[in-house]
Amino acid sequence: MSIVSSLSPRALAAPESGIVEVITYARGREGLIPLWAGEGDLPSPDFINRAASDALLAGETFYTWQRGIPELREALSRYYARHFSVSLPVEHFYVTGSGMHAIMLAVQAVTSPGDELIYLSPAWPNIVSAVEISGARAVGLPLDFKDGGWSLDLQKLEALVTPRTRALFINTPSNPTGWTATREDLENILALARKHGLWIIADEIYALYYYGDAPRAPSFMDIMEEGDRVLFANSFSKNWSMTGWRVGWIVAPPELGQVIENLIQYSNSGVAQFMQRGAVVALDQGDDFVRGNIDRATRSRDILCDALIATNRVETLKPDGALYAFLKVDGVTDSRRTALDIIDRTGVVLAPGSAFGKGGELFLRACFLRDPRQVEEAAGRLRDYILKL
Amino acid sequence: MSIVSSLSPRALAAPESGIVEVITYARGREGLIPLWAGEGDLPSPDFINRAASDALLAGETFYTWQRGIPELREALSRYYARHFSVSLPVEHFYVTGSGMHAIMLAVQAVTSPGDELIYLSPAWPNIVSAVEISGARAVGLPLDFKDGGWSLDLQKLEALVTPRTRALFINTPSNPTGWTATREDLENILALARKHGLWIIADEIYALYYYGDAPRAPSFMDIMEEGDRVLFANSFSKNWSMTGWRVGWIVAPPELGQVIENLIQYSNSGVAQFMQRGAVVALDQGDDFVRGNIDRATRSRDILCDALIATNRVETLKPDGALYAFLKVDGVTDSRRTALDIIDRTGVVLAPGSAFGKGGELFLRACFLRDPRQVEEAAGRLRDYILKL
Repeated sequence: MSIVSSLSPRALAAPESGIVEVITYARGREGLIPLWAGEGDLPSPDFINRAASDALLAGETFYTWQRGIPELREALSRYYARHFSVSLPVEHFYVTGSGMHAIMLAVQAVTSPGDELIYLSPAWPNIVSAVEISGARAVGLPLDFKDGGWSLDLQKLEALVTPRTRALFINTPSNPTGWTATREDLENILALARKHGLWIIADEIYALYYYGDAPRAPSFMDIMEEGDRVLFANSFSKNWSMTGWRVGWIVAPPELGQVIENLIQYSNSGVAQFMQRGAVVALDQGDDFVRGNIDRATRSRDILCDALIATNRVETLKPDGALYAFLKVDGVTDSRRTALDIIDRTGVVLAPGSAFGKGGELFLRACFLRDPRQVEEAAGRLRDYILKL
Repeated sequence: MSIVSSLSPRALAAPESGIVEVITYARGREGLIPLWAGEGDLPSPDFINRAASDALLAGETFYTWQRGIPELREALSRYYARHFSVSLPVEHFYVTGSGMHAIMLAVQAVTSPGDELIYLSPAWPNIVSAVEISGARAVGLPLDFKDGGWSLDLQKLEALVTPRTRALFINTPSNPTGWTATREDLENILALARKHGLWIIADEIYALYYYGDAPRAPSFMDIMEEGDRVLFANSFSKNWSMTGWRVGWIVAPPELGQVIENLIQYSNSGVAQFMQRGAVVALDQGDDFVRGNIDRATRSRDILCDALIATNRVETLKPDGALYAFLKVDGVTDSRRTALDIIDRTGVVLAPGSAFGKGGELFLRACFLRDPRQVEEAAGRLRDYILKL
């Protein structure tokens, strides 16, 4: 038996990220416009970096609270009061080593090996892999795609529920589709979860990147009641341009406190205290910076989507939320091959829809959290490419 | 069904750390001498903090290599050349979000739900819990305790191997016992692993904290050959006083590269690049600092062990390695209750042996990586307490 085949089937089954593959292909080339990752072009703002740096140089380098430092949990409580109009004491909040880590812990908290979790597809591929590595099974429900827009068919969702189903994973606004649940969608999903005794893992990390007629997307926070089984997995990455930090958080019913603390203890044993100091000021002093990010995303979304829709060869509406144009381009039959070809011919790096699972195969994903002038340049190159297809 | 009982059995089964329990009990009191955690009294050295801080303020806040930045993998290669006399190219190294994270990934890499992993007990409790949360089963083999010293009975180890056994977890020098495998022990363990087709997960994070007649403890690095199935889980915490950073690493056969990258991607998606800059200088410029830590530990070990052994009421030899005196005190029948009582009566905080599983119930663990004067004060208080028992 070879050394690789002696590994566990679950480890061998986890696929290479199809998003990472394109950047590996593109790495080192000159003049690229990288729209491939879910990441903006700005570094973390200086006031956040300084707070973490000061704490580090002051020697805050010891073990710390497994649930997160009290100051950060208090800042999270204030953030939800401001943006979600909810009053949640600190006992609801847990600091994690990235949004990815928050998702992994939420999955472990509510599923055991052999259990099933339903997610909506196309989806960020890491969700599926995290579930499968944990030993549970990820069951995808493709969203309906019609006239360039995405929608959820609740009857199809309920049809997938089996006695082994433990949870629904709901990412809204969605990466990559931009699908954003309406309040009515959320009410229906919550009713279904209540009826079947399911947990909801809510990934609302793009809630503030919302292009509808409100300051943010509808949230389970708006409709849930005490006793509802909802776990929120979140991240500092997108709002505050802190992708490289690997800090996230969980919002959970306070009764889960010790269980979540234990899952943190036995997976990474907490998050660096000096990084948490940065996260505190991000929350408390970062609203203007986030507003700026949202403004950039809004302008760049319009520039990119308007230019590509004008080709009449792209079947895609402007997304209601999140940071991605998910483009169905006439003539594309292999999105992976097309993504590599686009790198070669235009220098624009997109993520292939094939990386996002069932229903995404024919699409290309472009992240628009960037300087609008650069996005305009990318839009022009992509337009020319598409018109020649 | 209550909201807690609707959680997964594996999450509910993970126990609260018995080490954390005592610090929670002690927290906030004045004048404590905290020997409870595996952590020294020095903050991370300034040259490490500055390197990370500089990178952070320079904007190194974007997503980075999932396997770790090349500079850090190269520095790890140099570290192993200096301290272990092995020549390992960078493809052997993977940066993780703590030693704990490295252990979790190693466990996932080689076991599936239902598989068994054998570990030596008493053991750091996080190992058992990480295995169980991953869905596998941790099978403990108690080391033999005789005349104050610990030893491994290889026949007992082999007797625990079943068709479901996938791995041996070998922590040497051991937390909490200080047991340190001889080269012959390691050769026997490796032969057993080869014979049964098992992986070895080697936790040698205390290798340089060795009090025998050599610069470090014997290591699987000394005896393994190409094709042997050994995964090393390691951490920056102990050598460089970086407990609070949560950065570790894995050493693995290069064939495993993509699999380990995927497990990183789907658990925390990498480690902050700016923290990795600190880790690079820790490795390249930190040998003197580590030497200083080892000297402190050596002196404090002598002070603590000599004072307590002189009471004639402690059945414990000085440990051969690691950072702990694991004390069997006459008259102690409930180490948890005794640990709390010692806090109340002496202000010294120890970890109860009950936290370390089978075979540890009657012991108390004291970490001696501290200022020798403080350890002398603690030793005096403990001596008085023990003599009154």
